[in-house]
Amino acid sequence: MEISSMNNEKPSNFFTNKLLWLKSLPEKLIAKVVEIAKQFEKIGKDDPRRVIHSLKVGLALTLVSLFYYFQPLYNSFGVSAMWAIMTVVVVFEFSVGATLGKGLNRGMATLLAGALGVGAHYLASATGKVVEPILLGLFVFLQAFASTFIRFFPQVKARYDYGMLIFILTFCLVSISGFRGDGIVDMAHKRLSTILIGASVCVIVSIFVCPVWAGEDLHKLVIQNMEKLGKFLEGFGDEILKSSEIEESKDAKKSLVEYKSVLDSKNTEEALANFARWEPGHGQFKYRHPWKQYLKIGGLVRQCACRIDALNGYINSEIKAPEEIKGMIKETSMKMSIECGKALKELSQAVRKMNLPLSADEHVTNAKKSAKILNSQLKSGTKWEEINLLEVIPVAAIASILTDIVICVEEIGRGVNELASLAHFKRKNKEIINTKAVVEKMEGNNINIEGATTQGSRKVHVCSSNDHVVVTINEKNMKL
Amino acid sequence: MEISSMNNEKPSNFFTNKLLWLKSLPEKLIAKVVEIAKQFEKIGKDDPRRVIHSLKVGLALTLVSLFYYFQPLYNSFGVSAMWAIMTVVVVFEFSVGATLGKGLNRGMATLLAGALGVGAHYLASATGKVVEPILLGLFVFLQAFASTFIRFFPQVKARYDYGMLIFILTFCLVSISGFRGDGIVDMAHKRLSTILIGASVCVIVSIFVCPVWAGEDLHKLVIQNMEKLGKFLEGFGDEILKSSEIEESKDAKKSLVEYKSVLDSKNTEEALANFARWEPGHGQFKYRHPWKQYLKIGGLVRQCACRIDALNGYINSEIKAPEEIKGMIKETSMKMSIECGKALKELSQAVRKMNLPLSADEHVTNAKKSAKILNSQLKSGTKWEEINLLEVIPVAAIASILTDIVICVEEIGRGVNELASLAHFKRKNKEIINTKAVVEKMEGNNINIEGATTQGSRKVHVCSSNDHVVVTINEKNMKL
Repeated sequence: MEISSMNNEKPSNFFTNKLLWLKSLPEKLIAKVVEIAKQFEKIGKDDPRRVIHSLKVGLALTLVSLFYYFQPLYNSFGVSAMWAIMTVVVVFEFSVGATLGKGLNRGMATLLAGALGVGAHYLASATGKVVEPILLGLFVFLQAFASTFIRFFPQVKARYDYGMLIFILTFCLVSISGFRGDGIVDMAHKRLSTILIGASVCVIVSIFVCPVWAGEDLHKLVIQNMEKLGKFLEGFGDEILKSSEIEESKDAKKSLVEYKSVLDSKNTEEALANFARWEPGHGQFKYRHPWKQYLKIGGLVRQCACRIDALNGYINSEIKAPEEIKGMIKETSMKMSIECGKALKELSQAVRKMNLPLSADEHVTNAKKSAKILNSQLKSGTKWEEINLLEVIPVAAIASILTDIVICVEEIGRGVNELASLAHFKRKNKEIINTKAVVEKMEGNNINIEGATTQGSRKVHVCSSNDHVVVTINEKNMKL
Repeated sequence: MEISSMNNEKPSNFFTNKLLWLKSLPEKLIAKVVEIAKQFEKIGKDDPRRVIHSLKVGLALTLVSLFYYFQPLYNSFGVSAMWAIMTVVVVFEFSVGATLGKGLNRGMATLLAGALGVGAHYLASATGKVVEPILLGLFVFLQAFASTFIRFFPQVKARYDYGMLIFILTFCLVSISGFRGDGIVDMAHKRLSTILIGASVCVIVSIFVCPVWAGEDLHKLVIQNMEKLGKFLEGFGDEILKSSEIEESKDAKKSLVEYKSVLDSKNTEEALANFARWEPGHGQFKYRHPWKQYLKIGGLVRQCACRIDALNGYINSEIKAPEEIKGMIKETSMKMSIECGKALKELSQAVRKMNLPLSADEHVTNAKKSAKILNSQLKSGTKWEEINLLEVIPVAAIASILTDIVICVEEIGRGVNELASLAHFKRKNKEIINTKAVVEKMEGNNINIEGATTQGSRKVHVCSSNDHVVVTINEKNMKL
């Protein structure tokens, strides 16, 4: 492209240009290197766990390569130590769940396929040297065909795809290797033990050195998605519907469209849930934490995000409805939007702290009340003569979509309540009371102001800050 | 669970129950087997290419295992033939693009890492037996750290993730193996050649035995998604808005919600586009077919699907608007919806046949006209005194969403036109003219009715069916 356009110019020009290009080459190279370095920094800063993960992989690999360096270890495994290295490279994944899943898949599949492969070898070798390769070939073909087809099963694909791959691989290696040399059981045994060693190193490093839990990531992702929608709805209520001609700041608008990423989160959520099911209990999560419920909530959140996307179309469109209608609808719509936003934020907070989402219901109820008020306002509007329906449409559409969103938020609330009941979230009442009155009352009743008491399963914490007393009542394992 | 509930009954009952359970066991097993067999059948029927793919994997594996069976082949490669088997198992993927991508990644990464590994080995071995393992360990650690981190780059992750994995693996194997035995160059060479053989077998079988092209799948997926939305919109216009109390058939409703799958198609599309970029030209597609444009169209289609999801909420809700408004809006809304549906169907047809989408624009124009008519109808509606705004809201919302959808469809049309220009779609005019007039005119002018003539680059086909004459003008490689 560049050359053809230059052909029109004088040839001397072409060479000077080339010379200039050559001169600027080092600068360009430096610029490129700087750019790549910046990208490195950005990727590391976006999620510092990536740097740690890379270090962990290096550590695990260095550990298993000791099998080659130390004579006693090398004596017992020999070249088979190679399998340990392969296992580490292939099995070590970002999260504990993914690593465990792959490790278990690889271990189990090797064990099973190794046994079957040895069996196939003995069966084939009993038939004599002529038939043996034919029979072995047949076994390999049939096994590869069946296993490959089974990989298409959705249940298998989700959890055991890697295992099936290793099954095919090990069966072929073991059964065919037997054809050349008799150390087949020895080979199967060495392959299995080195793979187990490699997988163990992975799992140990993965769990004990700054672990990354897929379950925790899923938990946070669902919370963040709810927060993003809440932020949009609060922002929509606060800023957009007011009849302002004030120019929105770009940052505010940018934060509003954060919800768009929610629309594409399905696959990430499903992958994380799949990994999380392999993970042992960690932090706040027990072994059989209801990860599937997160997928359900995630689906509802995405449905809500779809509605919000429709709402987003009205942000930049000027709404021309007559002031009286706008004024009337504005306030209730604003209230609906803000209450929905608050409900979502409360729900996300409750999931984050694993408390029962008590105040969220209140916001949903408020939003529904506003919807009802809006309805009755619209019903009673017999004074609208000479109405221009066209101008009412956007306002009506916003009201209609918001009503839909209230229903979505209510369903998300139901989903979170189900999660709370499945995962035994705690009940937590936090009452912030004006210091003066309480302190006086407490002192009047000779109550010690700071400390904690336990009444049955109920634990009451009292602590005072600058001008507040916080009373926290914590009931453990309270079921819904 | 079962046992504990039985404990409440008499012990004799427990044993009879157990006996019954044992008796029913064969039946249950048979039922289970039948169920699994049915699932097998379903998966095979859903996409028969899966059965063929499984057979292809079996074939490829049997082919490479010949390296073990035939003495001359075994003499030259020995146990290294194992790498060929591993390569086939790991590289053979469902589509040609995925197989080619993995094969090229594996080959290139092995070549590069093998060379670097040999270099690292010589560098380390020059330092003497004490420092060597330490230096090798350091190399392995640094290389694993850097490569693992690079895998987080989005551009690398999309296309070269597997290559990076193999790079780490080969570097470790080659550099460490060198510590034990001197055949390191021989090992690197054997590993490379067997991997190349394995990858070649995969690629050949993949391309020449019933190939599955990722590009074709992407092409079809995008077309199907457009068709699904078109179907919904036509159905919505045809069936739902008419003030019928006729119960919809369940099938019709089921076919309407087909569009839901469009919402989740992003990841599939991206994966297919990634694979397609590895594929050589095939069928209608040249080597550098603009696959990225499909992703753009896919994104627009998903946006439209989101709007349709909002529309879908109104299907089952009873619309109570006064008959006069409903009657007025009904017809124009119907027209908008049906014209949008037709436009999408035309667009999908055009992409399918790789023709310029000429008549789609017409439908979009019609839909826009209807939208304008709707607007003016609503504007002129000064006769609506005593209006119940509440009842107007759903109608208004439907009209508003439909207006949005028209814009979406127009953008999809623009995307398809861009694709048509990038991929040099053919111009094809198809005019269906009433037989009588044309035949009379043609016979009057002594024109041969059926046949084809070529004028320059233009090819004119004339053929008559029962009561139509179809004139097809085909201009090859006409650029926009």
